[in-house]
Amino acid sequence: MHIDDRFQRVTEQLGDFVIEIPSWGFANTGTRFGKYLQAGAAGTLEEKFADAAQVHALTGATPTLALHVLWDLPAGVADAHRVEHLVGQFGVRAGSINPNLFQDQEYKFGSICNPDGAIRRKAIDHLLDSVEIAKALGSRDVSLWVSDGSNYPGAQSIRNRIEWLEGSLRLTHDALGEGQRLLIEYKPFEPAFYHTDIADWGMAAQFARFAGPQAFVLVDTGHHYQSQNIEQIVAWLLHLRLLGGFHFNDRRYADDDLTIGSIDPYQVFRIFHEILSEKNRAAIRDVAYMIDQSHNIKTKLEAMVQTVVSAQELFAKASLVDREQLASFQADAKTVEAEECLREAFWTDVRPLLRDWRERRGLPQDPLKALRESGYLEKIERERKARNASLSTSYA
Amino acid sequence: MHIDDRFQRVTEQLGDFVIEIPSWGFANTGTRFGKYLQAGAAGTLEEKFADAAQVHALTGATPTLALHVLWDLPAGVADAHRVEHLVGQFGVRAGSINPNLFQDQEYKFGSICNPDGAIRRKAIDHLLDSVEIAKALGSRDVSLWVSDGSNYPGAQSIRNRIEWLEGSLRLTHDALGEGQRLLIEYKPFEPAFYHTDIADWGMAAQFARFAGPQAFVLVDTGHHYQSQNIEQIVAWLLHLRLLGGFHFNDRRYADDDLTIGSIDPYQVFRIFHEILSEKNRAAIRDVAYMIDQSHNIKTKLEAMVQTVVSAQELFAKASLVDREQLASFQADAKTVEAEECLREAFWTDVRPLLRDWRERRGLPQDPLKALRESGYLEKIERERKARNASLSTSYA
Amino acid sequence: MHIDDRFQRVTEQLGDFVIEIPSWGFANTGTRFGKYLQAGAAGTLEEKFADAAQVHALTGATPTLALHVLWDLPAGVADAHRVEHLVGQFGVRAGSINPNLFQDQEYKFGSICNPDGAIRRKAIDHLLDSVEIAKALGSRDVSLWVSDGSNYPGAQSIRNRIEWLEGSLRLTHDALGEGQRLLIEYKPFEPAFYHTDIADWGMAAQFARFAGPQAFVLVDTGHHYQSQNIEQIVAWLLHLRLLGGFHFNDRRYADDDLTIGSIDPYQVFRIFHEILSEKNRAAIRDVAYMIDQSHNIKTKLEAMVQTVVSAQELFAKASLVDREQLASFQADAKTVEAEECLREAFWTDVRPLLRDWRERRGLPQDPLKALRESGYLEKIERERKARNASLSTSYA
Amino acid sequence: MHIDDRFQRVTEQLGDFVIEIPSWGFANTGTRFGKYLQAGAAGTLEEKFADAAQVHALTGATPTLALHVLWDLPAGVADAHRVEHLVGQFGVRAGSINPNLFQDQEYKFGSICNPDGAIRRKAIDHLLDSVEIAKALGSRDVSLWVSDGSNYPGAQSIRNRIEWLEGSLRLTHDALGEGQRLLIEYKPFEPAFYHTDIADWGMAAQFARFAGPQAFVLVDTGHHYQSQNIEQIVAWLLHLRLLGGFHFNDRRYADDDLTIGSIDPYQVFRIFHEILSEKNRAAIRDVAYMIDQSHNIKTKLEAMVQTVVSAQELFAKASLVDREQLASFQADAKTVEAEECLREAFWTDVRPLLRDWRERRGLPQDPLKALRESGYLEKIERERKARNASLSTSYA
Repeated sequence: MHIDDRFQRVTEQLGDFVIEIPSWGFANTGTRFGKYLQAGAAGTLEEKFADAAQVHALTGATPTLALHVLWDLPAGVADAHRVEHLVGQFGVRAGSINPNLFQDQEYKFGSICNPDGAIRRKAIDHLLDSVEIAKALGSRDVSLWVSDGSNYPGAQSIRNRIEWLEGSLRLTHDALGEGQRLLIEYKPFEPAFYHTDIADWGMAAQFARFAGPQAFVLVDTGHHYQSQNIEQIVAWLLHLRLLGGFHFNDRRYADDDLTIGSIDPYQVFRIFHEILSEKNRAAIRDVAYMIDQSHNIKTKLEAMVQTVVSAQELFAKASLVDREQLASFQADAKTVEAEECLREAFWTDVRPLLRDWRERRGLPQDPLKALRESGYLEKIERERKARNASLSTSYA
Repeated sequence: MHIDDRFQRVTEQLGDFVIEIPSWGFANTGTRFGKYLQAGAAGTLEEKFADAAQVHALTGATPTLALHVLWDLPAGVADAHRVEHLVGQFGVRAGSINPNLFQDQEYKFGSICNPDGAIRRKAIDHLLDSVEIAKALGSRDVSLWVSDGSNYPGAQSIRNRIEWLEGSLRLTHDALGEGQRLLIEYKPFEPAFYHTDIADWGMAAQFARFAGPQAFVLVDTGHHYQSQNIEQIVAWLLHLRLLGGFHFNDRRYADDDLTIGSIDPYQVFRIFHEILSEKNRAAIRDVAYMIDQSHNIKTKLEAMVQTVVSAQELFAKASLVDREQLASFQADAKTVEAEECLREAFWTDVRPLLRDWRERRGLPQDPLKALRESGYLEKIERERKARNASLSTSYA
Repeated sequence: MHIDDRFQRVTEQLGDFVIEIPSWGFANTGTRFGKYLQAGAAGTLEEKFADAAQVHALTGATPTLALHVLWDLPAGVADAHRVEHLVGQFGVRAGSINPNLFQDQEYKFGSICNPDGAIRRKAIDHLLDSVEIAKALGSRDVSLWVSDGSNYPGAQSIRNRIEWLEGSLRLTHDALGEGQRLLIEYKPFEPAFYHTDIADWGMAAQFARFAGPQAFVLVDTGHHYQSQNIEQIVAWLLHLRLLGGFHFNDRRYADDDLTIGSIDPYQVFRIFHEILSEKNRAAIRDVAYMIDQSHNIKTKLEAMVQTVVSAQELFAKASLVDREQLASFQADAKTVEAEECLREAFWTDVRPLLRDWRERRGLPQDPLKALRESGYLEKIERERKARNASLSTSYA
Repeated sequence: MHIDDRFQRVTEQLGDFVIEIPSWGFANTGTRFGKYLQAGAAGTLEEKFADAAQVHALTGATPTLALHVLWDLPAGVADAHRVEHLVGQFGVRAGSINPNLFQDQEYKFGSICNPDGAIRRKAIDHLLDSVEIAKALGSRDVSLWVSDGSNYPGAQSIRNRIEWLEGSLRLTHDALGEGQRLLIEYKPFEPAFYHTDIADWGMAAQFARFAGPQAFVLVDTGHHYQSQNIEQIVAWLLHLRLLGGFHFNDRRYADDDLTIGSIDPYQVFRIFHEILSEKNRAAIRDVAYMIDQSHNIKTKLEAMVQTVVSAQELFAKASLVDREQLASFQADAKTVEAEECLREAFWTDVRPLLRDWRERRGLPQDPLKALRESGYLEKIERERKARNASLSTSYA
């Protein structure tokens, strides 16, 4: 395939590459050792919408904002009209709806896996409320991370909890409206340190199958064992028609929630390559590309814009791969040729192409520079400073 | 449950705890850097049967010998009568049949996943031959490790290879006789270093489901990512009715093939505990407990006897757990109490009980000591020394 | 060595096995996702001393309490008299003094490694204050964890920061009084996720050497890479005469701060074995055995008593090893014999011996049971409940 | 710094970037499961020199060939004249001299760490012979990998072995001639699976210090724990003036010996960046850049040429970094700016620059293409085919 044709394809595919950003990405977060509070961090839902709108204005790529039920809609469905008002005001739509199954003190020994049936019921009700919120807001996806697990061998019955999970997920699934989806996330550890009830993609896939046809798997790129091959998992989920979407971030050790591609950019490229290799285009139309990052060090807005730009660059590189040529080398087991075919795209500098693409769409060529020159950062720091300085956070 | 009743239960369950040992466990093996040749290593199938018979005579727990098609039956089904003769001679039965999909030079880019259809066909034929061998020998299990994978990103199509695997496994499954099983093993890496086609339990489970009702998953305890919770995987496979059996060994880093429980005995105990917690006893009747260890340093026979004794001790400890009490603590989320209930069994010294159990069965109380005093080690070293010294092995 | 002599040795060595517990182990802590607040958690220094005294009364093994400068002596040296009063009141002495280099907002980009010289100076002053506190309280050890690091490649100059650290540590060292020690801890990651300035034992040892003869290395058992051999590091630090002490806890994945020996008891046993193998008894007289655990799930007091009992059991097992016999097997490269010699001690049930040892010292045979029956847990929950319930904690 | 000046700097620094390739990189190697024999693999020292000369002719960057004593000079010093003849014939010089401490059957329980003094002495003699060979060939470096270790807890005395190692290394060091160096390699595991006597950089650095001023540390990029920060180790070794050189290769899991930068190119770039950030240019003049890769799948010659080209590209990218600008951002703790400054160089496509650089030196612009068109591959396959086909290799 000629390089000009490939550049043309990149331009087209970039237009469809829509990224969802999370409301909690604008709030003050940290590690268990504390939070480094940012003067400009968002503290209200309105501020989160305002920040998201700023990112979308600069990148043109983030039309939706993921919402966290407990933090953004504490009153549940009753808060939906407030969200709708902000959607109208800021021009950013409500994205996936994220229930919270870890913050309540009653969830100490689990939420929908808790051995106490009353607590399980309470957690299920929260899931059903989340589905209702999603319906009210026209959100397609309920994005579910079950943090349940245990810290010590013997502490809990792993077997019983599988069954409790199956029941809860099916109930939630059955409450979904037409066109809605339940995305099931997996994570090997943290906050639980001996066993986590949905620990890997294999468990998530089994649960999705059990829950029903509208349930899919959500891949958080930071939720894997050291050295696990994430693009292979993506290939499997595509094969099984179970790939619901991504929570993108990067990591070196655990679930470090760093900027996408900041530690291992080649891996993100390979994930995009695996998706773009799917022959059935319809199969990947609904894949949700979401960011899940918590920046303790980088300024929130800068980090978010940098994230979107990085994601676009790595996606563009993957889009450049000459897949016909690659398939031919693979068929002939020409290892070096196939590898170099893939790398040829990775090493191509796509930044000029992206600047051009942005310019033609009336966007700033360099969104990060534009953010810094916009005065927006100074404005929000001025406005939010006093409130943010008063927060307290301590390890012990 | 009273401690005497628990001791009684241990005695009963130990009687059913049958361990299969591998023919290749008696042969000279090593690392890629070379083999430290043992004077007494077995070089012929007859020697392997003789050694296995010795282990069984000392422990009373290893009535079957796993066979490797390429090394033990190089002529395929035609060699079956030779095996039957040895079975008759040594009183040890043929156990699981292990095909070999990695030794042939044509498998450089894969066997049943090779992009070349002719090579895939050849590999499938080897699998079908293995099924026939199993039928001829009355072996229940064909135990399949597919070492296929690739070393570099882009080198192979992960997606295509999933489909080739599905086809091959179904063909193999459909050739099985009544009562036979196909056990599908997974392994994250080695000998392939970028992607392995059956890399984790999730993939193995999907393949088993696809292949058919006589396909199950084989758990090699050394084939996991660092920090992965193996007993949770066992719980899942029990839940899915897909647990076919185990290849036991221990490891600290990679697939180190060390003696069971030599690095992390608590983990082996927890695996047995998970199995013994299964309420449907029929569901675990067919779980195959097999050893897969390659000893480069320890004397082969000593290592095998030590392995059997260690496995019995850890199994006995797991059998001691007061499961009624434990379930009650788990239901009440009494973390410390539940943990201590489990550990109470782990810390109990079961060695006197095992000595007693052996004595009542006419077995030596200390099988390792009995082996050393038997003269068998000296005998085989004398007989096999010259042959073994002539082997050569080099890294480059 | 005869088993009776070995039991005698255990009894003697147990008497010298003194464990320091941390004041923060009684306070409410959690993960970045929140804290499960405990009604009986200590909120004041007086409560921490009271709880520590309770643990010591039950076990007779924890005469000192590690103090955290920022949380326990917020006014610095000026708070020393308050501590002395509590020491007098509760009969538990002040243990190691722990500076805090992570909680202040100015430490966002590092404390004694911060590129801003003024912030480095402030951090050094805190270290010097900590030394003064230690002097005022008669504490031998200043126990230093430097959490500094960076989250992204390029963000900081690794080289510059090595030099800044060297300078700061030497200044701190030179302020020590006679007989005082500076213990330097290492940790691979968290809260920094790209590089941590003191990431492994090799760096800590180099810093200790540079700082001066009163600087030593502190081994936190949870601060290692997956599969790293901790007992080998202990052997090295003994060899280099740099082993200062331990922060004990267990983990499966990251720095999980679980109960000692709860995940891998065999490893703790091997660490004790390595220490007890030291031929120069004077060399290990000053090794500090400290607990560093943060219990989010287990009740604080129960966890601490369970920890002390577990540590004693594993220490007693290591003390039981027949080291003369073992050395002989090692010299002859008798692998199986040497391994079994070590395991013989590990599998011996030392609980009866410990119950006997406690009884003879006028301690409860089962300290955990005694704690539960003491009424102390109910008392502190009653007294502290209202205060603890009012705390708030949230991820975002 | 202006981009043109940076491009100028790249061109200069590339000229000094000399890469040593290993003789064993042209021979048939594999995994413990077998070797996929290559028709064109080198089987004699003459063939290895011929292949190395071909790589040098195509890249102009590999003037020396690392030699392995046991495989390349089996008669020891007596073989030196044979090597000198080949050097004269092929125009490639003898590079580092690599002793072998693992192949001899007597090294089963260790070489210079063996509890048997006679075996230790034999191993030391081999090291002293290697030093003599290096002198005879004018080789600067003796490059030492000690594979010693143990497979089971208790099997060996870790402490005793530290002392034996110290003695052996000092003896070897003291035999070095003026200007010669002893490079000490570390590796966490394989072929030993419980403990390896030189397991990490900290141990290697201590041994180098003990051995003497001509001893340095050798960093094999594949010999680290999962997630360890290699560039930080490089920074430390530069700081300590102990960085002797590299064995480059890439890996995902263990010591996989894949092509440099094939799995994580960003990490290789960061390592080069750390070296090029050294302000004292003299300090890095002697850093040895060596390749240590064993290709089982890729054609040996292709892999070697691809390796050299990849190394040059990643080195050129690192050379492009605007270090003045970066230092300024680091001093101001501008995280995003500093990171983007580093990435700007990484994402620059340096391939045109390298093609230009090669052309001006009379080298083929695309060495891999030139190799394929040269007819050399077909020639050696024709000549060596029959010999190579007769080799046998088997796991058990």
